[in-house]
Amino acid sequence: MHIYADRVKHMENSAIREILKVTEQPGVITFAGGLPAPELFPLSDIRESYDRVLGAKDPSVLQYGSTEGYLPLREEIAAQMCAKGIKAEADNIFLTNGSQQGLDLLAKLFLNPGDIVLLQNPSYLGAIQTFRSYQANFRAILTNDAGIDLKDLEFSLKHHHPKLIYLAPTYQNPTGTTLPVEERQAIARLAGQYGIPTIEDDPYSELRYEGPVTPTIKSFAADDEVIYLGTFSKTLAPGLRLGWIVGDRKLIAKLIVAKQGTDLHTSTLLQQATHYYLTHFNTSEHVERIRQTYKMRRDLMLQELKVSFPTQVSWTQPTGGMFIWLTLPDGFDTDKLLPRAAAAQVAYVPGIHFYAHNGSHCSMRLNFSNPTPQQIKQGINRLAEILKVN
Amino acid sequence: MHIYADRVKHMENSAIREILKVTEQPGVITFAGGLPAPELFPLSDIRESYDRVLGAKDPSVLQYGSTEGYLPLREEIAAQMCAKGIKAEADNIFLTNGSQQGLDLLAKLFLNPGDIVLLQNPSYLGAIQTFRSYQANFRAILTNDAGIDLKDLEFSLKHHHPKLIYLAPTYQNPTGTTLPVEERQAIARLAGQYGIPTIEDDPYSELRYEGPVTPTIKSFAADDEVIYLGTFSKTLAPGLRLGWIVGDRKLIAKLIVAKQGTDLHTSTLLQQATHYYLTHFNTSEHVERIRQTYKMRRDLMLQELKVSFPTQVSWTQPTGGMFIWLTLPDGFDTDKLLPRAAAAQVAYVPGIHFYAHNGSHCSMRLNFSNPTPQQIKQGINRLAEILKVN
Repeated sequence: MHIYADRVKHMENSAIREILKVTEQPGVITFAGGLPAPELFPLSDIRESYDRVLGAKDPSVLQYGSTEGYLPLREEIAAQMCAKGIKAEADNIFLTNGSQQGLDLLAKLFLNPGDIVLLQNPSYLGAIQTFRSYQANFRAILTNDAGIDLKDLEFSLKHHHPKLIYLAPTYQNPTGTTLPVEERQAIARLAGQYGIPTIEDDPYSELRYEGPVTPTIKSFAADDEVIYLGTFSKTLAPGLRLGWIVGDRKLIAKLIVAKQGTDLHTSTLLQQATHYYLTHFNTSEHVERIRQTYKMRRDLMLQELKVSFPTQVSWTQPTGGMFIWLTLPDGFDTDKLLPRAAAAQVAYVPGIHFYAHNGSHCSMRLNFSNPTPQQIKQGINRLAEILKVN
Repeated sequence: MHIYADRVKHMENSAIREILKVTEQPGVITFAGGLPAPELFPLSDIRESYDRVLGAKDPSVLQYGSTEGYLPLREEIAAQMCAKGIKAEADNIFLTNGSQQGLDLLAKLFLNPGDIVLLQNPSYLGAIQTFRSYQANFRAILTNDAGIDLKDLEFSLKHHHPKLIYLAPTYQNPTGTTLPVEERQAIARLAGQYGIPTIEDDPYSELRYEGPVTPTIKSFAADDEVIYLGTFSKTLAPGLRLGWIVGDRKLIAKLIVAKQGTDLHTSTLLQQATHYYLTHFNTSEHVERIRQTYKMRRDLMLQELKVSFPTQVSWTQPTGGMFIWLTLPDGFDTDKLLPRAAAAQVAYVPGIHFYAHNGSHCSMRLNFSNPTPQQIKQGINRLAEILKVN
């Protein structure tokens, strides 16, 4: 029996992971994952990219590289960030193994045990898990009908001294909701005013199905408090494991030291191949193809929900991203209902797992990017049948 | 000004990194790095491996994967471990982004601030850096003429209650030395007897230039206290970033939870391509080619040292690995001499940086795997000239 560090007590092997294993069996229609549609991966373009960088007879593609990342890729990402209204040069870009590593490194830099993280409640499960492993405490950012309760946010900043703010403002995982422009401006202002590092986690903004582009929180930040996290997992492929952090140079210098001890650097080959892909293929056409497919699946799921569920059941109407958040009437417990759903060969993630504390038991997250239209129809049907809300 | 976590005070941006930047300029002969010879990377075989797995029209190669790693690769590594005398099945293998990530995840699982790590002094710089970032304290494993002072080791285990033991028993970085079989047996026994998790970091054992294969410490361990770290960085290529941990199933379960919060999983594509490479190419022939080249460079460096330095200077005679450890007479300070060496266009790593505490100032680490024979000759010459020991 090993004696583990105290922090291990806070690293739960989410019960959910165990439950969801059941749902990986053939025949089960799963809305539980957060997976892109694999049939849309640009396999042949990625194949060509690897072939070109490995065929260039330059062995440096397989050598140790710099901790901050491959310079031409940092330049390319900086240009993309500028196009999004975020002022960035190559020196502001730091490559990570997916944005999950960005969360881990930022938690490592900022969180002492007991420090408070201010976050949306519910929030991305993986972020909560990371912050917990650094023994953080949490405080929810309250919401009202208009969105975030800015007065409560300022009250928390003033009186609860959070160490970090964590937000996924665009097509959030798990709810699919998006913060309006005015709130983004206010958050950027408050983060600067109170000097609280604010993580803007933005994996989904490219998956926009309707409405205008909403500017990032970081684009409104006059100072360096807002730290932006990007990823290639949703627009290219998650199995590559490549993301990035946008921050000021002082932060990047700290991240370099933290990542040195963590895994030295991100794969040189991966970075060079991704740079080749970004600069040689029509990436916006590819993202447009993803958008069209996911939009169709979202529309279909929304329509099936409307047909199958009575008015006591409500759900979000996401304008982008990969998820719909469905809420059953009070008294339902989606955690307890999951085994019944699994038996009927359909799966979801019970909403409670996305709350850092004080969660609601009657919600669930439904993914629409991965299942086929046929599976969406059948799956929502099965779900309505076993839930029997009426 | 951000307020960082307490642990950040312990994460030094090693001054050495800054000094060594100077030595990256063209014309400088560097023995400072720990880099493999890039001209030996199996570029075309790796190219073919990526081409095959990306050409198989199975998009799962780019999808999210399991945290523990790609099963066929875990099976292949388990078989290789068994061939080394380490009992392992696929369930005992955990894939990491290089063995540096193995160190980070193990530190995360085991170290509370203030916990003691027992280690060789000097030790691998990157390991010290990782343990420091978890606010560990250190205690040196004393050595005597025969090798490790086993009585002192047992005394430390009994009275200092270390949380971890860290050892690189084979062709150690930085000294190039190897622990004899009897000491390995004793360490395996003591680790089990006192129940102290013992990390056997083994990046170099395949780079053997003479003498018999020395069995791993783990192969002598009757229980699960010894945790083995392997890597493809030295036998294949470091720019891929792929390593593994061998441990019992309970430890692997904890590692899964830790890595989930850290970066979800290691690249699916990288794992599948590496599996293809391992199962379709003659890897032992490739490693033999590396061995021959490095052995020649080691021999040359040893010979040049003998020609250029007087008898007051001593150095190790490594039978494998990538490093020679050179010790100048008392009074020399290799840290202070480095700028002078850099000015003469030759670089090394001052030995002091490899000590967790109480280091000697008159040593340096010299790498012989990366420089060409011509550079070794010229570089050792330059070094002898500026050090002017006589």
